[in-house]
Amino acid sequence: MPPAREVILTGDRPTGPLHLGHYAGSLRSRIALQATHDQTILVADLQALTDNSGRAADVHRNVTEIVLDYLAVGLDPELNTIALQSAMPELSELTMLYLNVVTLARLERNPTVRAEITARGFERDIPAGFLCYPVSQAADITAVRATLVPVGDDQLPMIEQTNAIVRRLNALASRSILPECRPLLSPVPRLPGVDGRKASKSFGNAIPLSASADDIRAAVREMYTDPLHVRVTDPGHVEGNVVFAYLRAFDPDQAAVAELEALYRRGGLGDVTLKNRLADVLESVIAPIRERRARLDRDAVAPILRRGTERARGRAQSVLADVRAAFSLAPV
Amino acid sequence: MPPAREVILTGDRPTGPLHLGHYAGSLRSRIALQATHDQTILVADLQALTDNSGRAADVHRNVTEIVLDYLAVGLDPELNTIALQSAMPELSELTMLYLNVVTLARLERNPTVRAEITARGFERDIPAGFLCYPVSQAADITAVRATLVPVGDDQLPMIEQTNAIVRRLNALASRSILPECRPLLSPVPRLPGVDGRKASKSFGNAIPLSASADDIRAAVREMYTDPLHVRVTDPGHVEGNVVFAYLRAFDPDQAAVAELEALYRRGGLGDVTLKNRLADVLESVIAPIRERRARLDRDAVAPILRRGTERARGRAQSVLADVRAAFSLAPV
Repeated sequence: MPPAREVILTGDRPTGPLHLGHYAGSLRSRIALQATHDQTILVADLQALTDNSGRAADVHRNVTEIVLDYLAVGLDPELNTIALQSAMPELSELTMLYLNVVTLARLERNPTVRAEITARGFERDIPAGFLCYPVSQAADITAVRATLVPVGDDQLPMIEQTNAIVRRLNALASRSILPECRPLLSPVPRLPGVDGRKASKSFGNAIPLSASADDIRAAVREMYTDPLHVRVTDPGHVEGNVVFAYLRAFDPDQAAVAELEALYRRGGLGDVTLKNRLADVLESVIAPIRERRARLDRDAVAPILRRGTERARGRAQSVLADVRAAFSLAPV
Repeated sequence: MPPAREVILTGDRPTGPLHLGHYAGSLRSRIALQATHDQTILVADLQALTDNSGRAADVHRNVTEIVLDYLAVGLDPELNTIALQSAMPELSELTMLYLNVVTLARLERNPTVRAEITARGFERDIPAGFLCYPVSQAADITAVRATLVPVGDDQLPMIEQTNAIVRRLNALASRSILPECRPLLSPVPRLPGVDGRKASKSFGNAIPLSASADDIRAAVREMYTDPLHVRVTDPGHVEGNVVFAYLRAFDPDQAAVAELEALYRRGGLGDVTLKNRLADVLESVIAPIRERRARLDRDAVAPILRRGTERARGRAQSVLADVRAAFSLAPV
């Protein structure tokens, strides 16, 4: 019998189309892991509602789009379990049970929650659901008994919160019913938006995976470089230069990128030349995705989600049975 | 076709045996309403866990005891829907969805929650589940589309919170999917414990419905009366006098109780005489309950809960479908 593959839980909130930041930061890694790992990809539509309850119809529409994005980048629904969060009642049940072993103070201290509260400008008026979302993430992770969770370094508190819950539950059960998980940190720094700010749907500064060749050229043309680098011969900065950030993330010839950086620093490399190169690189990344997406059958999404959700629910039911038993709740 | 009976949601947290305070304050009223109203009685075991997660086994055991208490006092499982909260996943799903339309600030302002936080001494260390329990109650109430909720006057904020959620959901759905509810205030003042403090399982100062004749006499003997009423001829106080509180709640001859009060005030009525009367009155209340309980088959509880829970889940599923649609979530 082959050794059991390690279980990964990953996913996305369906609040808009996936973009190159997602591709560099997580989708490429999922593609690399899909053959060797037991990977569940959760379309986190319930979590999207925690701060988008007024845009519920958008969230719903984006569920299909995001699965099309997955298929277009090459995630194989036979190798991965693609599941829909809102179609898994077990996740709500686990969350409600876990809320009993997490204090309000602990949730309020969660740095990711604090940062988001500040960014969204809702101090005490945060939806209660938003405050509870680290617990909901713990439910997602433990529901498939994941031991590996791909995260950015700003999401480490989520892993800590999950493991704190796991330890409380194992103590309640007086045996190990849930595994602790560890982070799989992305080796790629977070890709900035075209304007140099954080890539975000609300800023409209990201390049979606469905971008046309023209969209790509237009976006690259607007990219933030170095405002002091006016003439070709001027020395320029590569730090904070968005074009170089994208080249480092996507150019297959990284030795050439290093040489271009050196030349740009010394002076002698114009933004137009550089941007033409990047536009070609990005088109070579996106073209096959775009073409695959065009050939996809939208009607294939529902059965894929249904099968994946069923598979994930099977695991979640076994986990829920263990967690209910830890709380002395009878089987339903 | 007869007019639809009004829907009531009521219930108890299974944290200990029901006592005379429950009987005076709610069980008698449920018995009176069961023939004319569509009454769901929820055994709120999940809510009991919000601040008893360390005593989960106790909560589990008390589920059976509380249903036996219901049957013993004369609640008819054919007339009422007796359902088990933890066996209704729809309630967790509704709670999670409602948490998106309630702010943290609003939950923290809830006077019932504030009072309980103070009473239990857990300031910021409150379990997050405990803070969320008014939302969980809103899920219970709306899950059966209840319009009438028996409450003490200290629980009115629960009704307000529920109706606030109902209005938000109806606004989201752009139509009335959930009815607002109104309180059914108990006409009986809250019955004190034998020592004059609030009746509470943790004080051990309540008379359980399963008390033997000897238990009753012993409890009545210890009842707080008036410490200044030493001799029979001394004038005595009836305010704060626990014996009179119980006589007013249970003595079938209230005219006689009024005369006894007058005599006690003037002087000339001894505590022993009074307590003998009360012991007889309470024995006449409890004896038939005790006898019915002794004849009950414990094995009847599980099928009663199963049937009631199924009935309640049928309604809850229809409500959940409406609420999910309001959030643009596809049917599962």
